[in-house]
Amino acid sequence: MSTKPSDRLRALGIELPPPPKPAGAYSPVVTWDRYAWVSGQIVVRAGGVASPGLVDRDVGFEAARDLARQAALQGVSALEAALGSLDRVQRVLRVAVYVASSPGFVRQHEVANGSTEVLVQLFGEEGRPARVAMGVASLPLNAPVEVELLVGTG
Amino acid sequence: MSTKPSDRLRALGIELPPPPKPAGAYSPVVTWDRYAWVSGQIVVRAGGVASPGLVDRDVGFEAARDLARQAALQGVSALEAALGSLDRVQRVLRVAVYVASSPGFVRQHEVANGSTEVLVQLFGEEGRPARVAMGVASLPLNAPVEVELLVGTG
Amino acid sequence: MSTKPSDRLRALGIELPPPPKPAGAYSPVVTWDRYAWVSGQIVVRAGGVASPGLVDRDVGFEAARDLARQAALQGVSALEAALGSLDRVQRVLRVAVYVASSPGFVRQHEVANGSTEVLVQLFGEEGRPARVAMGVASLPLNAPVEVELLVGTG
Repeated sequence: MSTKPSDRLRALGIELPPPPKPAGAYSPVVTWDRYAWVSGQIVVRAGGVASPGLVDRDVGFEAARDLARQAALQGVSALEAALGSLDRVQRVLRVAVYVASSPGFVRQHEVANGSTEVLVQLFGEEGRPARVAMGVASLPLNAPVEVELLVGTG
Repeated sequence: MSTKPSDRLRALGIELPPPPKPAGAYSPVVTWDRYAWVSGQIVVRAGGVASPGLVDRDVGFEAARDLARQAALQGVSALEAALGSLDRVQRVLRVAVYVASSPGFVRQHEVANGSTEVLVQLFGEEGRPARVAMGVASLPLNAPVEVELLVGTG
Repeated sequence: MSTKPSDRLRALGIELPPPPKPAGAYSPVVTWDRYAWVSGQIVVRAGGVASPGLVDRDVGFEAARDLARQAALQGVSALEAALGSLDRVQRVLRVAVYVASSPGFVRQHEVANGSTEVLVQLFGEEGRPARVAMGVASLPLNAPVEVELLVGTG
């Protein structure tokens, strides 16, 4: 398999979601120096936020893990739009995964694997980031999962 | 209107609050390379934290939005003190807005607009950052809103 | 006292814990450009997470403060393993301290001092970071404290 992210994407049969539109006073991606900061991604579909609620109470573990994957891919889509090509991504540096958690839910790291496993598939070992995962009280629009990315660019 | 942040500040009639004093083992601002990291800002007045409590239960939405604006301006004041002049700020890169949220409050992104709208007013499009907003369980000193900034400097 | 972190470590009689092993799709430390991002650290002992639960309800303040110190040292251990020597750390830039908090606990900044005071001991004033501290709903594996570091390297 080629090591170019754009080729890997095709080889893996992954179709990126459309890049997110900002819904407020912020940028989806800020590029500066050799970096690109991607705003926190929540998964939005035609009718609004996908699977709203708290993880474990309203949204099951597997669904949350899948939302973490989709949010990461939405961030990748934002990067592609901002950089012109995914092949400019040289290193995924930091991924933060925020999980709106019902009391007692403590598997945020496993939800977060949904995000970072697909990044490793796409970018190889250069896609394996430093990571932080945590359970928060709630998220914008009642989203169950929010994913933030920082990448190094060429 | 001039594009210099110091001039815009005057033109907008915004008076910056005094720069925050650190209340523990940290720095208000760390400068390094072409960056300045600003510590999480909570709005403090003479008598202590402004409007303590959880947003929606103890602090209304409009008050929270205004606190987000004031916390951002406090961060700008910290930057001015650390950099000597706001005109050294070239790009606002990332803003994180942490909202101490009562159960069911899911408008953190709208609270966060209070922070980032004033940054766009001050710094123009270079002030439009990547952003993350979330509802947390509680914040230091019972503050309802905490705002963290990262900027690129010249 | 020498200003070399490796010498300070010895002079202070601090024994670093073993570097953490990643338990998922992430890297303990990512180095890039002049930076090292350290993944969120939770304190793990032979039998699992140390002192699981929420701070104030299950874990006392002093214990939480000590866990924040140990988590920071675990991050320092990860840095030593990744960089080859702590003497390559030139500046501690940002520390984030996430405290799994029971309702009404608002001393996260004092818990966070446990992390940043030991960093100042080890790295001197170059160890005094920008900081953010917050109370979250829960953390991976029911850990009460998670600590994330970003440092500038030579």
